[in-house]
Amino acid sequence: MAQDIATSRSTLPFIWVNGKLSEGALHLSALDRGFTLADGLFETMRAEHGIIFRLDRHLDRLTAGARVLSLPLPSNLLETIHEAMRTVRAAGFSEVSIRLTISRGVGAPGLAPPAETIPTVVLTVHHLPEFPSVMYHAGISARIVAGRRNEKSLASGIKSLAYTESVIALTEARRVGTDDAILLDTEGHISESSASNLFLVIQNTLVTPPKSCGVLPGITREAVLELAPTLHIPSKERPIPEHELFTATEAFLTSSLRRIVPLVRVNDRPIGSGDVGPITRQIMASYTTLVHRECTC
Amino acid sequence: MAQDIATSRSTLPFIWVNGKLSEGALHLSALDRGFTLADGLFETMRAEHGIIFRLDRHLDRLTAGARVLSLPLPSNLLETIHEAMRTVRAAGFSEVSIRLTISRGVGAPGLAPPAETIPTVVLTVHHLPEFPSVMYHAGISARIVAGRRNEKSLASGIKSLAYTESVIALTEARRVGTDDAILLDTEGHISESSASNLFLVIQNTLVTPPKSCGVLPGITREAVLELAPTLHIPSKERPIPEHELFTATEAFLTSSLRRIVPLVRVNDRPIGSGDVGPITRQIMASYTTLVHRECTC
Repeated sequence: MAQDIATSRSTLPFIWVNGKLSEGALHLSALDRGFTLADGLFETMRAEHGIIFRLDRHLDRLTAGARVLSLPLPSNLLETIHEAMRTVRAAGFSEVSIRLTISRGVGAPGLAPPAETIPTVVLTVHHLPEFPSVMYHAGISARIVAGRRNEKSLASGIKSLAYTESVIALTEARRVGTDDAILLDTEGHISESSASNLFLVIQNTLVTPPKSCGVLPGITREAVLELAPTLHIPSKERPIPEHELFTATEAFLTSSLRRIVPLVRVNDRPIGSGDVGPITRQIMASYTTLVHRECTC
Repeated sequence: MAQDIATSRSTLPFIWVNGKLSEGALHLSALDRGFTLADGLFETMRAEHGIIFRLDRHLDRLTAGARVLSLPLPSNLLETIHEAMRTVRAAGFSEVSIRLTISRGVGAPGLAPPAETIPTVVLTVHHLPEFPSVMYHAGISARIVAGRRNEKSLASGIKSLAYTESVIALTEARRVGTDDAILLDTEGHISESSASNLFLVIQNTLVTPPKSCGVLPGITREAVLELAPTLHIPSKERPIPEHELFTATEAFLTSSLRRIVPLVRVNDRPIGSGDVGPITRQIMASYTTLVHRECTC
């Protein structure tokens, strides 16, 4: 039945709400705590050949976040994801982005969670955004914005719905003609971009900020840290003072949707030569191979 | 028409979505950026005799937040609020809480705001929560939680939808048997409670943290700062180190819904004598008078 609805449609998005493929335009109560308080979590995932890359790691991160929020995860999550992917494959889509959102559901006014929680689960499947190939071939630019990422937040390191700050940061960076925003933590160390992790190449070593600098533990970030030793590239997680960004010879950003994007200019200054560097190219190529391998089993 | 629907109902909440009184249970798209990214703002207001206390100040704060978010506010906001209040009065409700939420509306995946924004406006009217009278007569307790409020955030000082951190803080405080959570800023100064501003009485002076300590500029907070000189109570906004909480002789919390609530215990230690102090009582009484005066014009 779900497959009939989906295959009869020509365009994404497909939207599942609480396990059911939705046909309408309205899906949520205005009293949903995801909307009123950002009281929830999400994962953005990418599928290749109709298979989600490292779904298990996304679910691990979701579970860790749910523990911090004391949010009970519904038991049929995996079922919904599998049904969605079957439907997507049956409809002939191969490369898609998937967003899984879980909120604490409808609540009374105020912050206190309801005595009995009935979470809202939303799964949306979209076409991949049209990433311009120049982004990968020539790299992108970024601006270090004034506001700081809070590594001391109770919500640090979990992928909660609270992305207001990142939206403001990205808007600020775009306003001055750059592609992305870089945020420092409250101590002045480099943290991450609006929605990506950041890697630098410093003295031929791959360096990325640790979780203690307010970064989200990215699935792509983790995979890159696994890949580095197989390529005989030394790598290290350590706090990075802002000025080291400009002594780095290469930089790149990682995220589940965009994967690995070279970062070649920050605050109007080139990173290294200003071109995509050799270690970045090596990581990009190996990552593509890794994804193909893991998504064709 | 709207009044007919409302008066035919016996119970709140009433929910207006984009200016229309809603009859269904679903009001929002799952793609609404208020739900997916906390990309929006809200105000919680309280009405007495069917009149919202200091609506103008709430709208000023909303407008300031909209500027930070580059979020265009719909022109008919005030119309919706007035229609809602007329409907509420016609239905015979006098004391209610009103929540106005404005999000950036439906968007494509990703953080970048859509080229053309059609905001979502939700106005809900609820019964006032049943505040136990002991809260006002005997005061409440709080716990200083480990996570810090980020006074260096791009979203600091605006009432965005990103309340995840406050929900976690309140949950943590309740878990150890206290009523509310107090958050310090990233430098270790006292900031605010999960959803209230904090005042201390130190050497007979009313002291409250300034906006630079990550506090939301509360409407009740502002009114208390206006009231103090009329009562010949000296007042001051200044950064307050954590330890001063325990040398204060009185403390209270302020918010639009709860108004003024004495705070008598923090981390299992009494504030002052552990009873509701004389300056707190004086402010509470004057505030009640102020509300009655302003809400009966």
